[in-house]
Amino acid sequence: MFTRHPLNPLITPAHLRPSRPDYEVIGAFNAGAALVHGETILLVRVAERPIKSDPQWIVCPYLDASGEITLLRVHPDDSDYDTRDPRFVRHLPSGNVFLTSMSHIRCARSRDGVHFTIGDQPFLQAETPYEAFGVEDARITPLGDEYYINYSAVSSHGIATGLALTRDFQTARRHGIIFPPSNRDVAIFPRQVNGLYACYHRPMPGDFGAYSIWYATSPDLVRWGDHQVVVQGSRMGWDSGRVGGGAPPVWTEHGWLSIYHAADRTQRYCLGALLTDHDDPTRVLARSSTPIFAPELPYETDGFFPNVVFTCGATVIGDTLRLYYGASDETIALAEASLSELLETLRREPAP
Amino acid sequence: MFTRHPLNPLITPAHLRPSRPDYEVIGAFNAGAALVHGETILLVRVAERPIKSDPQWIVCPYLDASGEITLLRVHPDDSDYDTRDPRFVRHLPSGNVFLTSMSHIRCARSRDGVHFTIGDQPFLQAETPYEAFGVEDARITPLGDEYYINYSAVSSHGIATGLALTRDFQTARRHGIIFPPSNRDVAIFPRQVNGLYACYHRPMPGDFGAYSIWYATSPDLVRWGDHQVVVQGSRMGWDSGRVGGGAPPVWTEHGWLSIYHAADRTQRYCLGALLTDHDDPTRVLARSSTPIFAPELPYETDGFFPNVVFTCGATVIGDTLRLYYGASDETIALAEASLSELLETLRREPAP
Repeated sequence: MFTRHPLNPLITPAHLRPSRPDYEVIGAFNAGAALVHGETILLVRVAERPIKSDPQWIVCPYLDASGEITLLRVHPDDSDYDTRDPRFVRHLPSGNVFLTSMSHIRCARSRDGVHFTIGDQPFLQAETPYEAFGVEDARITPLGDEYYINYSAVSSHGIATGLALTRDFQTARRHGIIFPPSNRDVAIFPRQVNGLYACYHRPMPGDFGAYSIWYATSPDLVRWGDHQVVVQGSRMGWDSGRVGGGAPPVWTEHGWLSIYHAADRTQRYCLGALLTDHDDPTRVLARSSTPIFAPELPYETDGFFPNVVFTCGATVIGDTLRLYYGASDETIALAEASLSELLETLRREPAP
Repeated sequence: MFTRHPLNPLITPAHLRPSRPDYEVIGAFNAGAALVHGETILLVRVAERPIKSDPQWIVCPYLDASGEITLLRVHPDDSDYDTRDPRFVRHLPSGNVFLTSMSHIRCARSRDGVHFTIGDQPFLQAETPYEAFGVEDARITPLGDEYYINYSAVSSHGIATGLALTRDFQTARRHGIIFPPSNRDVAIFPRQVNGLYACYHRPMPGDFGAYSIWYATSPDLVRWGDHQVVVQGSRMGWDSGRVGGGAPPVWTEHGWLSIYHAADRTQRYCLGALLTDHDDPTRVLARSSTPIFAPELPYETDGFFPNVVFTCGATVIGDTLRLYYGASDETIALAEASLSELLETLRREPAP
C-alpha cells in the first residue's frame, strides 16, 4: 500500500552538523511534519553524543542542576551498570537510568517534501529540569495560525510530554509539562471535538499495566483529563508489546485516520492504521489487523536500534499521504500512499 | 509530636462484615476523612479475598470483561508466577500482574471521631474497566457543599486515579479518570489557587524515573496539567524509596500544610510534613527532615504489609489535627497533634 521513496533515507546523520564541535550526530529520526505556506517542515530529532577518545567507554551526557552539560562515563565491564541496551545505561544500586545520547529538535525545510535544508542549530533543546536528558519525538499540530508542538521531555523525573508553540518555526514558547511521567507519543487532533481539544496519548505504567493508546480532552491544550483507553495491543504478534500514537490524526470524510506504532515483544516496531469516529474518537470504526508498514529494507532492519519504523508526522497533499518515518532510530525516510486506497483497505477490515 | 489514641487500632478487619458471604475481610485501612455536619466520615479501603478451601493456593479476584468477578488460582510452586510479594502475583511470561485481594471503599461514621459505625455495603466498588482489580485509597476534598473523592482505580491498564462526587456519602457519581496510569496519591486542595483547582499527585515512572510529588492545576477538577515537581525523595534514609501525597492539604495562616508519605528502599513507610506557599504550592517553605510519624507499635510494625503508616485523610478541630492512618495495610488508627506545635516544629527546620 505504501511506496518507499527512491531517495530513502532522505535524512541521515551524515547530513547534519553537530550542535557542538566536540559532539557527533548519531541519529536524525522521528520527525514531526507540517505543511507551512507551501513548504514541508520537519522537526527532526537529532541524537548526539560526545566524540569519544576511547571508544570502549560509554559516555552519557545530561544537563546538571546548574544547567551545564555533564558527562557520565561508564565502562562496559563495570558491574554496577547494566549496559546491554544501546540507548541507555542503568546504575543498578540506585536504579537510575542515563541515556547514551542526548536529543534535540532541529528544523528541516523543503519545497518538494523530499530534499531538505537543515539548520545547524537546535530549534528546541534541553533547557528545563524535565529535559535534562534531552527532548525527543516532536509532533506538530496546526490549530488556527499557530503550531502546537508536543515532545518527550526526558530526565531523571521520567519521560514526560511537554508542549511548545510556534508561529514561524524560528522560535518556540514552552507551555510546560502536559502529561507527567511516564507518558509520550501524544498526538493532538488538528481541530476540536465537541468543543474541547483532543489527543491520543500513551501512558507507560511500568511493569504493572499494558502500554495502550488513550484518549483525553482539554479546554486549553495544557490541562488534560477524562482519560479513556482506545487501542490495546494484542496477546500475540506484531502489536503484542505495546501500541502508541504516531502522526497527529487526519480528518477524513470517513472519520479520523491515525497512523500509530506497535511493537512486538522483540521490540520490532511496525505501523498500523486506525479509523475513529469524528465526534467520539474513542470509538474505533476500523483498525488494521496486520501492519500497514513494516521494517524491510536495510536502513530499517539495521542501524542504531534495528527493526524500527516509527512515525511522528505525515502530510496530506491531495489524495497522497506522505508518511515521514524514523528508520532504526537513525534516519528519516518517506513512504507515500493513496489516502482513499488506505481508507478503502481499512474499511474492509473486520469490525473491531 | 503525635499522640496515638489509646483505643488504636480504631478499625480492624474483625469489625467489618464482608460484602459477600464467600469473602473474608483482610484489611480495613487507608481511609479518606472529612467532617460532615459534625460527624467524622471515613471512606475506608476494605480489602477482601475469597475464602479459600485450600489455604496453600493464592486466589486473585478480578472483574472480567463481562463485569463478573472471576478468580485466578495460582500455586506458589508454579514457576510461571512470581508470588513473593503478598499483595500481588506476576505472570512471568506475559508480565501481567494480578492482586491477591480486591478493595472497595466503605463509609464509616462517628460522632466522636473515635467510635465508628461501618456500613455492610460498599460505597464505591469495582465497576468500570479501569477498576477491574478494585478501588483503593480514597481522599475526600470538600469544595462548596460537595465532596470530591479521588481514588486509585486499579486494573490491567495500570494504577490510575478516578474522581467521584458526593453530597451525602450515600451515593457517588463518577467523573472518569483524572490521572492516567501510573499515578496515585492525589491530594486535591480544598480551595482554588489563583483561580484554578490544585492538587498534588504522584506519577510512578516505572523504573525510569523517581517517585516524587508533583503539582498540577485544573479548571474543572477533571482535566489537569502544567505539572511540576514539588518534593523529591532523598538519596539516603527514610524517604529514599519514594514520596507521595497523603491527606489533602490543610490551609493554615503560614501556608498549606501537607502530611505526606515516604518510603525507604526496604518499603518502610513513614509520614513527613510539608509547608508550601499559599499562592504557589510548588514553593516549599518548610519540610520535615525526619519523619513526623513512623511505624513503632506492633499494629504498625506487624500485619499484612508490615512497617507501614500511611494517611489518606485528617480532620482539624480547633488546634487539633486528627490524623487517620492505615497501619501495615491492615487497620485504621488515629494519632493527634497540636496544629500550632506541628507548624512551629516545621518552621524551625532548615530552609529547603
